[in-house]
Amino acid sequence: MDRILMTIKYDGSGFFGWQRQEGVRTVQGTIEEALSMLFKKPIKIIGTSRTDRGVHALGQRAVFDIDELKIPISNLKRALNNALCAVTKKYGPQDVLIQEVELVEPVFHPRYDAKDKLYRYLIRNTREYDPFERLYSYHIAEHLDTDDMLVAAEMLEGTNDYASFQSAGGTPRESTVRTIYSIDIGRDNDEVEILIRGDGFLYNMVRIIVGTLVEVGLGKRKPDSVKEALLACDRCEAGHTAPAEGLYLVEITY
Amino acid sequence: MDRILMTIKYDGSGFFGWQRQEGVRTVQGTIEEALSMLFKKPIKIIGTSRTDRGVHALGQRAVFDIDELKIPISNLKRALNNALCAVTKKYGPQDVLIQEVELVEPVFHPRYDAKDKLYRYLIRNTREYDPFERLYSYHIAEHLDTDDMLVAAEMLEGTNDYASFQSAGGTPRESTVRTIYSIDIGRDNDEVEILIRGDGFLYNMVRIIVGTLVEVGLGKRKPDSVKEALLACDRCEAGHTAPAEGLYLVEITY
Repeated sequence: MDRILMTIKYDGSGFFGWQRQEGVRTVQGTIEEALSMLFKKPIKIIGTSRTDRGVHALGQRAVFDIDELKIPISNLKRALNNALCAVTKKYGPQDVLIQEVELVEPVFHPRYDAKDKLYRYLIRNTREYDPFERLYSYHIAEHLDTDDMLVAAEMLEGTNDYASFQSAGGTPRESTVRTIYSIDIGRDNDEVEILIRGDGFLYNMVRIIVGTLVEVGLGKRKPDSVKEALLACDRCEAGHTAPAEGLYLVEITY
Repeated sequence: MDRILMTIKYDGSGFFGWQRQEGVRTVQGTIEEALSMLFKKPIKIIGTSRTDRGVHALGQRAVFDIDELKIPISNLKRALNNALCAVTKKYGPQDVLIQEVELVEPVFHPRYDAKDKLYRYLIRNTREYDPFERLYSYHIAEHLDTDDMLVAAEMLEGTNDYASFQSAGGTPRESTVRTIYSIDIGRDNDEVEILIRGDGFLYNMVRIIVGTLVEVGLGKRKPDSVKEALLACDRCEAGHTAPAEGLYLVEITY
């Protein structure tokens, strides 16, 4: 049996999220349809992160198994993208792309073997609304104080119980302890970019962290309140959930 | 009677073009719906350019009339965008924005009084396909020689009969003579941008000019052949019609 690891880029705006669901268009469902077409039999994939509806990916990962790969691995990427192009055609130009394929050991697991994940959150911080950015960023008209946001962000780094930064409705997890290695915040003119690297994230965790930092940046809460929110282990103490559109799964490291 | 001129920005990917049509979502139809909601009676608009399905606008123009504007003109933009937000809501975040409103003379006509129009065409000239750019540019994997394209572009400037650069199916025009003031071509890494300014354009004229220049840039035709195509007054002598996605109506000057 050959196990193949894919690196996947997608614009999340045309999908109801990653996870296969009956009757709606999902990233997993679309890739499975393309693989099944290509190999002429039903093929299932296992992804690393179940990105929500509207969330984008620059480097999602997923694996699938095949009894014996009959085409050279070097040709697989192109064959798979051609199949994806055919499958996505009725929805418009191809909005999910296989960037890389590689053979991995049959014991390799895309989720359990992931060491860390990097998410990017993009905010457009300018008065004027831009229709072209509506599906790709979070528009905040009032000026964000990124210095205050950085102070608050540092309090969220490290190994902590992030129960306050978790939405109900996700897959139940045994523990709400995670490690955030770094939160970087940078401004480039109107764009504020937040990069969060961690060993794993609870349901909506990145978006709640961003929403909380935004409230700090707007002066609606003090940077110190973020530490208190963390210690409270109570969702009500953290800020709002930032919208899906601004979120990008950048990379997964094994 | 008050005549109001609007400057409009829209992402064309969610619309079946500018022109109102029964049963499909168009930019004109959407703005008319918002205006009718705001003023509580049916209001029609006259636009400058009937952009095709998938074509974007950074500075489209249109007018509407109202017996007497009862809110200050300074509040109209916000009121109209709020109405547009409500009208577009079921399709997602607002994809058409009123950027400016101004009172004009009742004799002002947005199309007949237009002196020149500027279009921008965006090409992504790089091997890797990018799902995020699929609705906003023309992807060409092979390298384009922009020097050759510029030589060809110069042959299309001036006052000419552009019958070769017109698709069938547009509004019949009395004359196919137009003036192109300038065609500029610039490269910024992977992006090739073509700016075309003229006093008016025939149906699909910008896209056929771009398609023809692309064929020159790929070495599929000589720069001189573009002059021949122009003189032939025959659509078959020009190149392919570049896709709508890369086209932006930038501004209209009165």
